[in-house]
Amino acid sequence: MRLVIIGADAAGMSAASRAKRNDPNIDVLVLEKTEDVSYSACGMPYNIADPDRPIDDLVVRKANVFREKQGIDLRTGHRVDLIDPVNNRISGVNIKGETFSFNYNKLLIATGAIPIRPKLPGFDLPGVMVLKSLEDGRRVKEYLRARDVEKSVIIGMGYIALEMAESLKSRGIEVSMVKPRMRFLPWMNETMAGRVRKELDSHGVGVYTGIELEGIENTKDGLRLVAKDKKFDSQMVLVATGVKPASELAGQSGLELGPSQSISVDDHMRTSNRDIYAAGDCADAYHMVTGKKVWIPLALRANRSGWAAADNMTGRESILDGVAGTAVFKVFDLQVARSGLNLKEAKNEGFDPVEMVIEASTRAHAHPGSAPIWAQMVADRRTGRLLGAQLISTEGAAHRINAVAVALHGKMTINQFAQLDLAYAPPFGPVWDPLLVAAHQIMKKL
Amino acid sequence: MRLVIIGADAAGMSAASRAKRNDPNIDVLVLEKTEDVSYSACGMPYNIADPDRPIDDLVVRKANVFREKQGIDLRTGHRVDLIDPVNNRISGVNIKGETFSFNYNKLLIATGAIPIRPKLPGFDLPGVMVLKSLEDGRRVKEYLRARDVEKSVIIGMGYIALEMAESLKSRGIEVSMVKPRMRFLPWMNETMAGRVRKELDSHGVGVYTGIELEGIENTKDGLRLVAKDKKFDSQMVLVATGVKPASELAGQSGLELGPSQSISVDDHMRTSNRDIYAAGDCADAYHMVTGKKVWIPLALRANRSGWAAADNMTGRESILDGVAGTAVFKVFDLQVARSGLNLKEAKNEGFDPVEMVIEASTRAHAHPGSAPIWAQMVADRRTGRLLGAQLISTEGAAHRINAVAVALHGKMTINQFAQLDLAYAPPFGPVWDPLLVAAHQIMKKL
Repeated sequence: MRLVIIGADAAGMSAASRAKRNDPNIDVLVLEKTEDVSYSACGMPYNIADPDRPIDDLVVRKANVFREKQGIDLRTGHRVDLIDPVNNRISGVNIKGETFSFNYNKLLIATGAIPIRPKLPGFDLPGVMVLKSLEDGRRVKEYLRARDVEKSVIIGMGYIALEMAESLKSRGIEVSMVKPRMRFLPWMNETMAGRVRKELDSHGVGVYTGIELEGIENTKDGLRLVAKDKKFDSQMVLVATGVKPASELAGQSGLELGPSQSISVDDHMRTSNRDIYAAGDCADAYHMVTGKKVWIPLALRANRSGWAAADNMTGRESILDGVAGTAVFKVFDLQVARSGLNLKEAKNEGFDPVEMVIEASTRAHAHPGSAPIWAQMVADRRTGRLLGAQLISTEGAAHRINAVAVALHGKMTINQFAQLDLAYAPPFGPVWDPLLVAAHQIMKKL
Repeated sequence: MRLVIIGADAAGMSAASRAKRNDPNIDVLVLEKTEDVSYSACGMPYNIADPDRPIDDLVVRKANVFREKQGIDLRTGHRVDLIDPVNNRISGVNIKGETFSFNYNKLLIATGAIPIRPKLPGFDLPGVMVLKSLEDGRRVKEYLRARDVEKSVIIGMGYIALEMAESLKSRGIEVSMVKPRMRFLPWMNETMAGRVRKELDSHGVGVYTGIELEGIENTKDGLRLVAKDKKFDSQMVLVATGVKPASELAGQSGLELGPSQSISVDDHMRTSNRDIYAAGDCADAYHMVTGKKVWIPLALRANRSGWAAADNMTGRESILDGVAGTAVFKVFDLQVARSGLNLKEAKNEGFDPVEMVIEASTRAHAHPGSAPIWAQMVADRRTGRLLGAQLISTEGAAHRINAVAVALHGKMTINQFAQLDLAYAPPFGPVWDPLLVAAHQIMKKL
């Protein structure tokens, strides 16, 4: 039995390791187009913050460990160009220009996601960068080492953009963030998004929304981002305008695609072809709140779906629950977390949602060092069900969101949530946890 | 309609406020034997740590606010000595020595808990203190101000004892902790309890278990705790050997008592008498895991049960879920948290429990500042159900435990828990949250 895996990052290598653990006699072949395998992509902004730390610190397991210790046939510099689902065969070309082709019994597509670049002039100039692969990270780090970067521009205001703003600032680089849309963090409650924006202001990061981009051009000292009525000069432009699933290959071979052109998989990670599976950022998932398909490419799901795919491909049935859309990030001193649906998403899904935002304290009454914490909650008026929550604070937001995630998995009502026996001690929160306060407030509106 | 409440701390005043909010026309009379109302008892160790902060900072709402703004007839210095359930009447004596008696339509007993003192010679000497009421806290603080306390002895090693060790140490006072039983934190997994003990060692706190106490005597410089084969000299002894429910009055009036002689209440906070309710530390609760009665006196339950009792007494039905036994405390740099049952408790309750302890990191692979985190989990072999968990770490344990609490309320299996979409970002944890790692490890043993 031969298992072929396309892609050697989180999902691909989780799957390869798991398959070999399940059955050491299976022939596991992994084809990776880059030279990097199994690294912590999410760690890149933090690694870039420190000029003295090699980017390869982020490699979780080295290629030769997979090869020699785990017996995985891992080939880097191998780009797959074609899947032939009729003959269970893939083919492609390697970095030396040699073509290859292999038959498979089961195929796993774990091609991840690729950065979106605006189709505007100058976005291919040197010094205009993206940050998705480890090679991207290496390039950014090398550029910062080689060049005297005093000013930078970040296009986009998502997780990576915000983490990179902090990262570059910590290296003493001026940062301006720009985006075409008007709303900053459009998925977040507006009051709370305002607080996050304030955090950027107070750290001297320029935030420019509603900027109509026209292109990037070279100047004497570096680069100029040209927008309608505005120009941003810098020595580096980071394009962090989101990602899309790397599903071209899957689409060409006739596999069914889901939201945002991600590869559609069932709860076994199986695509529309019975011998082809997909896992990680290229694949879709069921949402625990709506039961519908979504595309939310995040690291935990990538690892987990790699495992599940490997189990199912090697004959050990594994059914995967969906995602709750739980996410957290840090921006300077602020923790920003969410799980489930926001008000708009809930409306779009046909719920009759009610939203509540409360401001509370991170520590007990009269406890020193207390800071504000904002908790937002969304519930369905018809069923009383909890649909989602958002949290921001300088402490206690990141892990607190998990209580919401568990409740969403458990399909709890807001009344059930309000009854939860959550932990209390003065250094860690008020007697009534901010999430319980939000739940009680929203109950009054239902 | 007259509602009489005995006790004016968390449960009593929550109930009084709620009853008035539900129906401003109800006559609400609160009788409190001390002079203090509505304070954050849990905050006392932290307040005591700071000589410059008045203990009255811990008062959440002042007596005159309850009286003037909320129209509650709040009488301090009023000790109730008798409940006559046949005639719906209570009587007692006030601080001036005057007797009083009142009829009630509904009565709420919110008498809290009282410290246990070993019945040994010298435990009534000046400088031998307990810490339960605000008056106790005032006394400790005043004693520390008036006396030159260089050395202290804490008898007991529970939450309060540990918090007070940190508090006194922060004031430069030497601390020795002693207890008769051999095991340090007997409810905790032994490996993890060892880690907590190390935290005390590394902060120079002496920890002496298995000490057979004989008594306390006066010396030239202060106090001497005399034990078999050992003596502890100090200028202050804090007795923190646990509390018991203040249920004497309830017991004498024939009300049914539950675990540890706490007042037995149903899910409406009603005692065995239909006109008498009980709430807070004096009352029992159902355990969410076992469905059986337990006595776990903690602040959130006190507030919550006060509300529920008030609702039910004023004709708004409120059914309260049970407790999950969620608790957290801080000891020096360590966060210690638990929820649900430990191995021994699970065995005693007739489960077939499996325990797992894992050590993980508080931050992602290669993220700077990562620290160890220990996660313990208990599950039932027969049903696969999650029964409880414990966490310790210098960061990320306190709020992380809430995910377990929610799962216990939802009666989740360990397989369901392992599938949870928990939050991930490099500064806050590894891709696989330590709780997910523990769940996966325990699945292998089931």
